Amino acid sequence: MRFVIIGGDAAGMSAASKGKRTDPNAEIIVFEQTQTVSYSACGMPYNIADKDSPMDNLIVRKASAFREKQGIDLRTGHRVTGIDKKNRVIQGVRDNGEPFDCSYDKLLIATGASAVLPDIPGIDSPGVVTLRSLDDGRAIKDFIANNAVSRAVIIGMGYIALEMADSLRKRGIDVAMVKPRKRLLPWLNQELSDVVYAELKKNGVELYPGHAVKEIEKTDRGLMVRCDDLQLECQMVLAAFGAKPNSELAAEASLETSAGNAISVDRRCRTSDPHIYAAGDCADAYHIITGKKVWIPLAVLANRAGRVVADNVFGEPFEMQGIAGSAMFKVFDLEIASTGLNPGEAADNGFDPVEITIQSRSRAHGHPGNRTIHLAMVGDKKSGRLLGAQMVGEEGVAHRIHCVAVALHTAMKVHDFWQTDLAYAPPFSPVWDPLLTAANQLIKKLS
Amino acid sequence: MRFVIIGGDAAGMSAASKGKRTDPNAEIIVFEQTQTVSYSACGMPYNIADKDSPMDNLIVRKASAFREKQGIDLRTGHRVTGIDKKNRVIQGVRDNGEPFDCSYDKLLIATGASAVLPDIPGIDSPGVVTLRSLDDGRAIKDFIANNAVSRAVIIGMGYIALEMADSLRKRGIDVAMVKPRKRLLPWLNQELSDVVYAELKKNGVELYPGHAVKEIEKTDRGLMVRCDDLQLECQMVLAAFGAKPNSELAAEASLETSAGNAISVDRRCRTSDPHIYAAGDCADAYHIITGKKVWIPLAVLANRAGRVVADNVFGEPFEMQGIAGSAMFKVFDLEIASTGLNPGEAADNGFDPVEITIQSRSRAHGHPGNRTIHLAMVGDKKSGRLLGAQMVGEEGVAHRIHCVAVALHTAMKVHDFWQTDLAYAPPFSPVWDPLLTAANQLIKKLS
Repeated sequence: MRFVIIGGDAAGMSAASKGKRTDPNAEIIVFEQTQTVSYSACGMPYNIADKDSPMDNLIVRKASAFREKQGIDLRTGHRVTGIDKKNRVIQGVRDNGEPFDCSYDKLLIATGASAVLPDIPGIDSPGVVTLRSLDDGRAIKDFIANNAVSRAVIIGMGYIALEMADSLRKRGIDVAMVKPRKRLLPWLNQELSDVVYAELKKNGVELYPGHAVKEIEKTDRGLMVRCDDLQLECQMVLAAFGAKPNSELAAEASLETSAGNAISVDRRCRTSDPHIYAAGDCADAYHIITGKKVWIPLAVLANRAGRVVADNVFGEPFEMQGIAGSAMFKVFDLEIASTGLNPGEAADNGFDPVEITIQSRSRAHGHPGNRTIHLAMVGDKKSGRLLGAQMVGEEGVAHRIHCVAVALHTAMKVHDFWQTDLAYAPPFSPVWDPLLTAANQLIKKLS
Repeated sequence: MRFVIIGGDAAGMSAASKGKRTDPNAEIIVFEQTQTVSYSACGMPYNIADKDSPMDNLIVRKASAFREKQGIDLRTGHRVTGIDKKNRVIQGVRDNGEPFDCSYDKLLIATGASAVLPDIPGIDSPGVVTLRSLDDGRAIKDFIANNAVSRAVIIGMGYIALEMADSLRKRGIDVAMVKPRKRLLPWLNQELSDVVYAELKKNGVELYPGHAVKEIEKTDRGLMVRCDDLQLECQMVLAAFGAKPNSELAAEASLETSAGNAISVDRRCRTSDPHIYAAGDCADAYHIITGKKVWIPLAVLANRAGRVVADNVFGEPFEMQGIAGSAMFKVFDLEIASTGLNPGEAADNGFDPVEITIQSRSRAHGHPGNRTIHLAMVGDKKSGRLLGAQMVGEEGVAHRIHCVAVALHTAMKVHDFWQTDLAYAPPFSPVWDPLLTAANQLIKKLS
């Protein structure tokens, strides 16, 4: 039994490792086009913030460890260029230009995602960077080390863009952020989004929402980012337009794609070909609330899906239940967390959403160090179901979102969520946890 | 309709407030024996740690606000001494010695709990204090302010005792803790308990488990706490033997009592008399996992039960689903959290418990400031159900326990818990959340 994996990142290496643990005699071959496998991509903005921390600190496990300790046939510097479904063979090219091919019994496509780069004149200028792979991270760090970067422009205001704004400010670099749409984080409740906006301003980040970049010009003094009515001079541009699934190989092999052009997989992570699986940022997933296909590239999903593929290839059939789209991040002193559907998404999926927004506190009445927690919660007027929650605050936000995610996995009603026995202690919570206060307010509007 | 409430703390005032909101014309009379209502009892150890913070900071709402803003007939300094079920009348005595009585249509007993004081010679000596009411808290603060307390002995090692050890150390007072049993926190997993033990030692707390106090002697120099083979000299003794429900009034009125001698109530918080409710630390509750009656005095339960009583008296019938026994507290730099059943409790309730203990991290690989999280998780071998979890660590512990509590409310299986979409970001978690890593380990032992 030969199990071939394309891509040696979270999903690919999770599948390889789990496969070897399940069946130590299995032949598992991983083809990875770069030299680096198994690193914490999400850690890159935080690493960039610290000029003295080597980027290699983010490598969780070296290629040699996979080879020697786990017996995985990991071939770095191998780029796969084609899949021959009929003959169960993949073709590719090595770093040195030599072609290769390899037959498989089962194949996993775990090719991840890439940064989106729109066709703006000058987008390929030196000093215009993206952040997706560890090599991207190294390039940014090298660029800052070797150039006098006093101001950077970030195009885009998604959460990687925001993390990078924080990171660059910590390096003493002025940051201007620009994007076409007016809303800072359109998926976030307006009141909460305003809190994030204020935090960015407080930390000296210039914000220019509502400006589409038309051109990036290389000048004597660095780079000039031009919009219709705005020009921003800088020495570095971070293009953070978001990501797209690396589904080209799959599409060329006529495998089905779906939401966001991701590779379509069933609950066992099988593609439309019975011998080919897909997992991680290149594949879609079922939403736990709607049951519909979504493309939400999440590290936990990639790791989990990798394991599930190995279970399905080597062990018992195992089905993925779905994702709630849980996400959290940190910007300056703020924690931001979200799970489930916002009112717009809920309405699009046939629910009758009601949203409440409250301000609560991170600690008990009279406890020193108390901070405000801003919380939005969404329920369905028809069924009473809890549909999602979003939070912003300086403490007590990140891990609180977990319990909403668990509630979403069980289709819990807001009424029942209010009854849950959330723990209380003065340093960590008001007696009524902010989530319970929110649920109580939401119940009133649902009835 | 006259609704009479005995006790003006969490449960009583929650019921009164909710009642007035539901039916502004209702006559609601609260009899409270002290002068203080609605304060954060759990905040007392933290307040005592700060000599400059007035104890009144813990008062959430003054008696006058309940009277004037909410129209609640709140009578402080009124101690209720008897309940005449047949004639629906209570009797009592005022501060000034005057007797009073009051008829009711519906009655709520919300008398709370008291500190247990065993019959040890010298337990009534000046300088021997307990901590349950705000007056107790004030007395401790006054005693420290007016006496040269260089060393205190705490009898008991429950979580209030531990919080007080922390608090007194912050005041520069040496602390020795003594109790009969050998195990520090017998309800906590041994490995986790050892971590707490080490934290106390690191912060200079002397620990003498396995010593029963025989006598407290008043000496020229203060107090001497005597065990069989140990003598501890000090200027203050905190007797922290735990609490007992104030169910005497109910018992004298022949209302049923149950677990831990608490007043027995049904899911609508009704006692064995159809016109009398009980809520808060004086009443029992259903355990969400076992369905059995338990007595676990918890602030959130008291507040929730108070509201539920008001709903049942004035609004729609409302049933309490039960409690998971979630608790958290902070000792020096450690967060400690627990919910559900430990293996002993699980076995006692007919489960076939399996426990795993893991060490995980609070942040992602390579992220600065990473701390160890110690985690124990319990599942049932027969059903695969998640039964409980306990955690100890310097960060990322407190709010993580919430999601286990939510899972317990839905009788979730460990296998399904592993599939939940817990959020990830490097400052807050490894990619695999410690709870998911634990669930994965537990699944292996359950199958």
